[in-house]
Amino acid sequence: MSDPVAPIADVESLATMDVAGRSARLLTAMAAAEVDALLVTNLANIRYLTGFTGSAALLLAAPDGLTFVTDGRYGQQANTQLAAAGVTAAIQVSGTGQKDLVVGAVRATGVSRLGLEADAVTWAAQRTYDEHWFADLELVPTAGLVAGLRLHKDDGEVARIASASAIADSALAEVRARLAERPTEVEFALELDTAMRRLGADDVSFETIVASGPNGARPHHRPGHRTIVEGDLVVIDFGALVDGYHSDMTRTVMVGQASSTQARMYDVVLEAQAAGVAAVGDGVEAKAIDDACRAVIDEAGWLDAFLHGTGHGVGLDIHEDPRVGQTSTATLSTRCVVTVEPGVYLPEHGGVRIEDTVVVTPDGCRPVTMTHKSAAV
Amino acid sequence: MSDPVAPIADVESLATMDVAGRSARLLTAMAAAEVDALLVTNLANIRYLTGFTGSAALLLAAPDGLTFVTDGRYGQQANTQLAAAGVTAAIQVSGTGQKDLVVGAVRATGVSRLGLEADAVTWAAQRTYDEHWFADLELVPTAGLVAGLRLHKDDGEVARIASASAIADSALAEVRARLAERPTEVEFALELDTAMRRLGADDVSFETIVASGPNGARPHHRPGHRTIVEGDLVVIDFGALVDGYHSDMTRTVMVGQASSTQARMYDVVLEAQAAGVAAVGDGVEAKAIDDACRAVIDEAGWLDAFLHGTGHGVGLDIHEDPRVGQTSTATLSTRCVVTVEPGVYLPEHGGVRIEDTVVVTPDGCRPVTMTHKSAAV
Repeated sequence: MSDPVAPIADVESLATMDVAGRSARLLTAMAAAEVDALLVTNLANIRYLTGFTGSAALLLAAPDGLTFVTDGRYGQQANTQLAAAGVTAAIQVSGTGQKDLVVGAVRATGVSRLGLEADAVTWAAQRTYDEHWFADLELVPTAGLVAGLRLHKDDGEVARIASASAIADSALAEVRARLAERPTEVEFALELDTAMRRLGADDVSFETIVASGPNGARPHHRPGHRTIVEGDLVVIDFGALVDGYHSDMTRTVMVGQASSTQARMYDVVLEAQAAGVAAVGDGVEAKAIDDACRAVIDEAGWLDAFLHGTGHGVGLDIHEDPRVGQTSTATLSTRCVVTVEPGVYLPEHGGVRIEDTVVVTPDGCRPVTMTHKSAAV
Repeated sequence: MSDPVAPIADVESLATMDVAGRSARLLTAMAAAEVDALLVTNLANIRYLTGFTGSAALLLAAPDGLTFVTDGRYGQQANTQLAAAGVTAAIQVSGTGQKDLVVGAVRATGVSRLGLEADAVTWAAQRTYDEHWFADLELVPTAGLVAGLRLHKDDGEVARIASASAIADSALAEVRARLAERPTEVEFALELDTAMRRLGADDVSFETIVASGPNGARPHHRPGHRTIVEGDLVVIDFGALVDGYHSDMTRTVMVGQASSTQARMYDVVLEAQAAGVAAVGDGVEAKAIDDACRAVIDEAGWLDAFLHGTGHGVGLDIHEDPRVGQTSTATLSTRCVVTVEPGVYLPEHGGVRIEDTVVVTPDGCRPVTMTHKSAAV
């Protein structure tokens, strides 16, 4: 196979996660939302509460316990994973009888108000539940019950995000010099992705963005067959996945000599990003982080060229709460994990975005992204 | 960078897709569903109707035209991609004013019955639309309006799926011999994925499954650090992505000498898969394909070890209509693209699954998966 590389990620050596303890905290949140039971349909939430990693499951959380339903593809896996996480649940494997299993489990709990995750249930599913499964119950739209727990990462979760970040840092360091060798965007992206996986990533965190020259002015450009040449700013936005947890970072590299505008773009974004990170702290409104970045870019006269929000939470999802932008209503608190990623995009000059992922601490924050911020190849 | 490899995929050379012609057919389907306008929220459906590939958009389809809304990250891209597809739409880039833009566009159409894609709108979004955006309109749950168009692939779509399949075939041929060199599952998966991307895949079609030995008994096992050894059946389920279109195939490889049970498992699944493919045709009920596979496996006494349905449609989504299983109500017709993938899973012996993707033709079907079906490395 490939040349052997010592993987960075060794999940067994990372701090453990208290998966089994999470459902007790969920019950508290459910009580506050006045639901007797919650039908969890968001798969990341099911993973969070049970350790199950498959692609099909329903979880009923009720005061008398958890009921977990999956299909035949995942029966053996569910037994193994829930046991490994120390989670006690009635595990049921449905063929075509999923409805009967779930309805039976709900009946057994004697609930009258059944919560659904309104952001994770389709209107079609809600209508089916309402008309055919639970016609005699009150279905209650809930928002953020599990997401609220997931806001604050435990030591095991932070360790996984940090491990994924370390893989991303190392991978970029490994392949960065190749940017001077005129690769195409897709070639460089493949090198980077392969490096992350050889370093032990389970997968990439999301489709790697390599946006060079004029493509850099599109914040979410997909790598193409453009050759990276001297005079290009290259926006590289990428991450690794470790045990379900994502990392997220962006660096912009200047290939060859920067024009004066490019150099100024870089300096402004660098300053904006530092201002954003400096603003992060326990008790700080997420919007204030965005304000801090935006003020620096506004001062430079490029406010209209900052085409997106400043950041987002990172964890089991690559984009999760809290959002960090002008319309955010969240307040950060210790153990939140968020990105700070301002950018300036000018079609004639390219794009610059710089992004770190940070963990909120009582005193401010601590980065998990360690790569230096020099623009040089 | 990597050694140069001539990519197989050259999208420019493939048959073109008539993206711009699709919305007229949608209007016909909308009229049959008695909706005056449809708010399209499923991103694959938006891509199908407009050519837009970004991750945030809303599309309003109405008799007087299309209104396309995206956010600042994708403004430039939307203009380029819709123009390239020949799609005429009012393109609006929202900052925080998405609601006003969409509500304004709906108002301008003078609709009274506004369709929502019930399978692609969350209950939370439907509630917001109903209470705050369109309180004076009747919101109508629609099912499968765009999916119904997507059932039948045009020449350009078939060409993309076939191109992706050819990449997958070539990649497996390139790395197959490595199975005899005791790689771990993740190492082999990385080799295969890298080969697909070097051959021109935009990405992998889904997370590659490499399930060896006892892991093979879990149909959706994720590759782990188990070393593949003599005596293993290795289930390899993977595909490539070309211009948004997926391929999907599974081969099972026997490393070393098969036990008599393993050999029989392989023969039974091979026969079941052939029976399934032979049953595919224009006007055939999807359930009949599943019946054909299941009958062979039942005859062998392993019906309980066939843990999933027989197949699914493939296109812009890796799993789309029509489903091919016991509960399917679909009828296949010419230009449907489906997988046929029976399997037998026995924890003590491993797993066997064999899968081809086929295009339904007036006379039966034509495979796009070309890899041979010998179990040998």
